[in-house]
Amino acid sequence: MQNAGLLKELIQSLCCLPGVGPKSAQRMAFHLLQRNRDGGRQLSLVLAQAMDKIGYCRDCRTLTETEVCEICANRLREDDLLCVVESAADVWVIDQATSFKGKYFVLHGRLSPLDGIGPDELGIDKLEQRLAGGAIKEIILATNSTIEGQATAHFIGEIANKFNIRATRIAHGVPMGGELEFIDSGTLAHAFAGRREV
Amino acid sequence: MQNAGLLKELIQSLCCLPGVGPKSAQRMAFHLLQRNRDGGRQLSLVLAQAMDKIGYCRDCRTLTETEVCEICANRLREDDLLCVVESAADVWVIDQATSFKGKYFVLHGRLSPLDGIGPDELGIDKLEQRLAGGAIKEIILATNSTIEGQATAHFIGEIANKFNIRATRIAHGVPMGGELEFIDSGTLAHAFAGRREV
Repeated sequence: MQNAGLLKELIQSLCCLPGVGPKSAQRMAFHLLQRNRDGGRQLSLVLAQAMDKIGYCRDCRTLTETEVCEICANRLREDDLLCVVESAADVWVIDQATSFKGKYFVLHGRLSPLDGIGPDELGIDKLEQRLAGGAIKEIILATNSTIEGQATAHFIGEIANKFNIRATRIAHGVPMGGELEFIDSGTLAHAFAGRREV
Repeated sequence: MQNAGLLKELIQSLCCLPGVGPKSAQRMAFHLLQRNRDGGRQLSLVLAQAMDKIGYCRDCRTLTETEVCEICANRLREDDLLCVVESAADVWVIDQATSFKGKYFVLHGRLSPLDGIGPDELGIDKLEQRLAGGAIKEIILATNSTIEGQATAHFIGEIANKFNIRATRIAHGVPMGGELEFIDSGTLAHAFAGRREV
């Protein structure tokens, strides 16, 4: 189309959102322009603020606009439980889905030597400092169940052992509501190996 | 989650995009914050500009940031062919998909008396002025093939008749690549009624 410098630019910019291709971007642009300009303006404002003001929590490294995030600053949460996750999105998901009331530590990745990601990149020194503090009684390893995630959990488990802190791993097995027929073999093997007394 | 005022606000604002629910909005927010802050800043800028500067073309009523859109201002396009569409998005789609080289007129809706949308809301007076100008030899009615779209096409066809201008309707029938077995009965009946000599 020959028309529309700014319209074209808007459609292209919307493509930077994950899962949004040219067709959806086009639909979004026309929707905002024809039906919801106020929403578009609001989104623009909040986006600019968020991109500039949201940084990382001093203590747990999650995304926050304050120096210490609300979870770390919350005195009602237990100080002796620490959940280690790979990303800030995991904090969000776990806090919405579970009744976990401890604190978090965000690695922002997983050990992956081939990609040059070692303990330094994951803030393991900061985690060690925290474990050395003595307040923590249990560390819950909630990294992903990929090979790298497992290796990272194992690595951090060893560190916890060094400090005589109990390290636990979240359970892996058949998802709730899952039918055995459709579960992949790796998960099923894992579920059998990890069976528990009823 | 108790955390994250600004992050929560960002996720809520992203939900104003069509087809984006809380889960996708969450994914978008974390993606932008963790991997593409520049993209987010750029989107914010372009959004603000687009919402403020994009208005409607004086001649054809499509979305444009200039007084007259590029299609109307383009001297290489034919002045005697006018394609009438329901929305600015249709202009974009037709211009990308077809080799149509005439000009457009955007109704921004369709006749729908029950919703209080009559000829005045669709800019029919402006369209009449344009037809009265004498430059137009053919008007192509490309409104949607809904009941209201058909009624609108018929209504504008009558006006064209009044000015002795040829009015055509885009073809309706079986879509290209469509298998008869899966076509709905209305379309199939229409395709039979509208059969042509080969």
